[in-house]
Amino acid sequence: MSATRRAAPTLEQVAERAGVSRSTASRAINGGLRVSPEAQAAVDAAVLELGFAPNRAARSLVTRRTDSIALVIPEPDERVLSDPFFAGTINGLGSVLHETDLQLVLVMARPADVATRTVRYLRGGHVDGVVVVSHHRDDVLATELEQAGVPTVFVGRPFQHGHVRYVDVDNTAGGRMAAEHLVRAGRARIGTVAGPQDMSAGLDRLAGWSAALADAGMAADAVAYGDFTSAGGARAASRLLAEHPDLDALFVASDLMAAGALGVLADAGRRVPDDVAVVGYDNLAVATSTTPALTTVVNPVVAMARTAGGLLLDLLAGEAVPEAPVVFAPELVVRASA
Amino acid sequence: MSATRRAAPTLEQVAERAGVSRSTASRAINGGLRVSPEAQAAVDAAVLELGFAPNRAARSLVTRRTDSIALVIPEPDERVLSDPFFAGTINGLGSVLHETDLQLVLVMARPADVATRTVRYLRGGHVDGVVVVSHHRDDVLATELEQAGVPTVFVGRPFQHGHVRYVDVDNTAGGRMAAEHLVRAGRARIGTVAGPQDMSAGLDRLAGWSAALADAGMAADAVAYGDFTSAGGARAASRLLAEHPDLDALFVASDLMAAGALGVLADAGRRVPDDVAVVGYDNLAVATSTTPALTTVVNPVVAMARTAGGLLLDLLAGEAVPEAPVVFAPELVVRASA
Repeated sequence: MSATRRAAPTLEQVAERAGVSRSTASRAINGGLRVSPEAQAAVDAAVLELGFAPNRAARSLVTRRTDSIALVIPEPDERVLSDPFFAGTINGLGSVLHETDLQLVLVMARPADVATRTVRYLRGGHVDGVVVVSHHRDDVLATELEQAGVPTVFVGRPFQHGHVRYVDVDNTAGGRMAAEHLVRAGRARIGTVAGPQDMSAGLDRLAGWSAALADAGMAADAVAYGDFTSAGGARAASRLLAEHPDLDALFVASDLMAAGALGVLADAGRRVPDDVAVVGYDNLAVATSTTPALTTVVNPVVAMARTAGGLLLDLLAGEAVPEAPVVFAPELVVRASA
Repeated sequence: MSATRRAAPTLEQVAERAGVSRSTASRAINGGLRVSPEAQAAVDAAVLELGFAPNRAARSLVTRRTDSIALVIPEPDERVLSDPFFAGTINGLGSVLHETDLQLVLVMARPADVATRTVRYLRGGHVDGVVVVSHHRDDVLATELEQAGVPTVFVGRPFQHGHVRYVDVDNTAGGRMAAEHLVRAGRARIGTVAGPQDMSAGLDRLAGWSAALADAGMAADAVAYGDFTSAGGARAASRLLAEHPDLDALFVASDLMAAGALGVLADAGRRVPDDVAVVGYDNLAVATSTTPALTTVVNPVVAMARTAGGLLLDLLAGEAVPEAPVVFAPELVVRASA
């Protein structure tokens, strides 16, 4: 026996030995969730070989489960059903849960109702865990769910995030990347249609744009705010162009808003990109169906939702999931609009 | 005192006396759900005047509630998120629940998963009641939910409907109405793109079309089947036109499928309505965005969902809801396509 006491084997080591993912190993060990017979056998063998002892408290937690996970979207239904961002989130999370026996339930709620009926439902023990997307500053989900001990993972940084896990993309870097692309293209007067300022994505994309303009010695004063919808983007772009007719470039903080802004520019006879270059954000399907197609920043919606789902399954299996957020790097996709 | 014993006052009488809807009266009597102070006072007064005695068993049922209702859609998420029929259903049901404290949870499930995870979740006591839409012949929801005693209302006639309440539109009359419009227009050879035959809407619309053609002494043999999606409608229309190049009219059992069929007709150089008249079904927004705009049969999606939600609230309040279905009458909207 070596001089140092061997540390207890970890779930990661079991997974590596069995040649499966940590999530699969976790599910095989905790039982009840769908695992292929081959993976189950490999994990059972690795557990025996390594002498792995699963956490009993975690296992008892698993046995109290309701077999369901809620995806909570504190937005009115009509927003959820018309914005492809949410379709991507639902598909990403659904694809993780399809490998398990867990039922996904979708909880939409007008922000005004979140503090009452939604929180009561989520705290009532009717779901095992929660993924929250499209959180707003004033909603109480992060605080309430943490106090209630409901396993929770946010997609997008929550405002009150004590110990709540979250997955995000670096929206500040993304906003900066969009603005720097316009600066490099020689644009002299760059405005922005920013997102809602009660959402971290809206705040961060604006901060990144603003920092890039400051670095370039340019004024970051041409700002209008939209609500991430196409109609809201059109209204904000109209206001912005009326106040700043000298703009020759726009960073619009979502592709749906950018689609609305392109309509306003076309109606005003401003050519894109010749007169006004436009960079969007998200790289969802709409980015390739606009005229011209949008240069945009990738928002890895499906990957973020999949990752959040994986972290939640790990939490439910009683694993020690690090509190540090998982943050994806943004990426610029150059098309015709800038 | 009169010779006949006076019947115990009904909830309907209380509602009438108070000048409120039956649902409002029910909520006021059972307490806990949102009712205006004026309505509450009027109902309290009516209860006293009439000597109304609420059903105690029903009240205890209400106090065990989870404060949530599931809308179950046994379809894959991507279908649910891309078909405006479901958006209408969600909005209709949501609008009823906004008047209460109930949280709506949306449960989507691939048909293969319904019998296992979805039924387990719904039977687990995690929701107070269920509305099911887009039921298929083989899913076990009607039987399982009835056996489990979960208050349930279907939108669309279920295949196994012992005592399950449902709301529907008369799809047979709707299919007949569409075909009769084409017969009256002098069309000689009328085909149909039918819906899925494991759904009552698909079956009934086809039966109505077929009966109308029989009445007119015409052959009802030009049939292809689609899956209620635009792409599925296009494929079915292609097959149908290849097999029956003499068709001069099509009844397509959903507007989304009709949009796909119009694309196929345009690609084939067949003018609509001159060469081929087309009647759709649903009258959702897509019917006015096609070229040409669709003549179609109204499917009162929002009204059916609202009605189903109202019936479910009545069931939850312990009222004696008649088992007879609520069936809406169809209506033809004539536009350019036929």
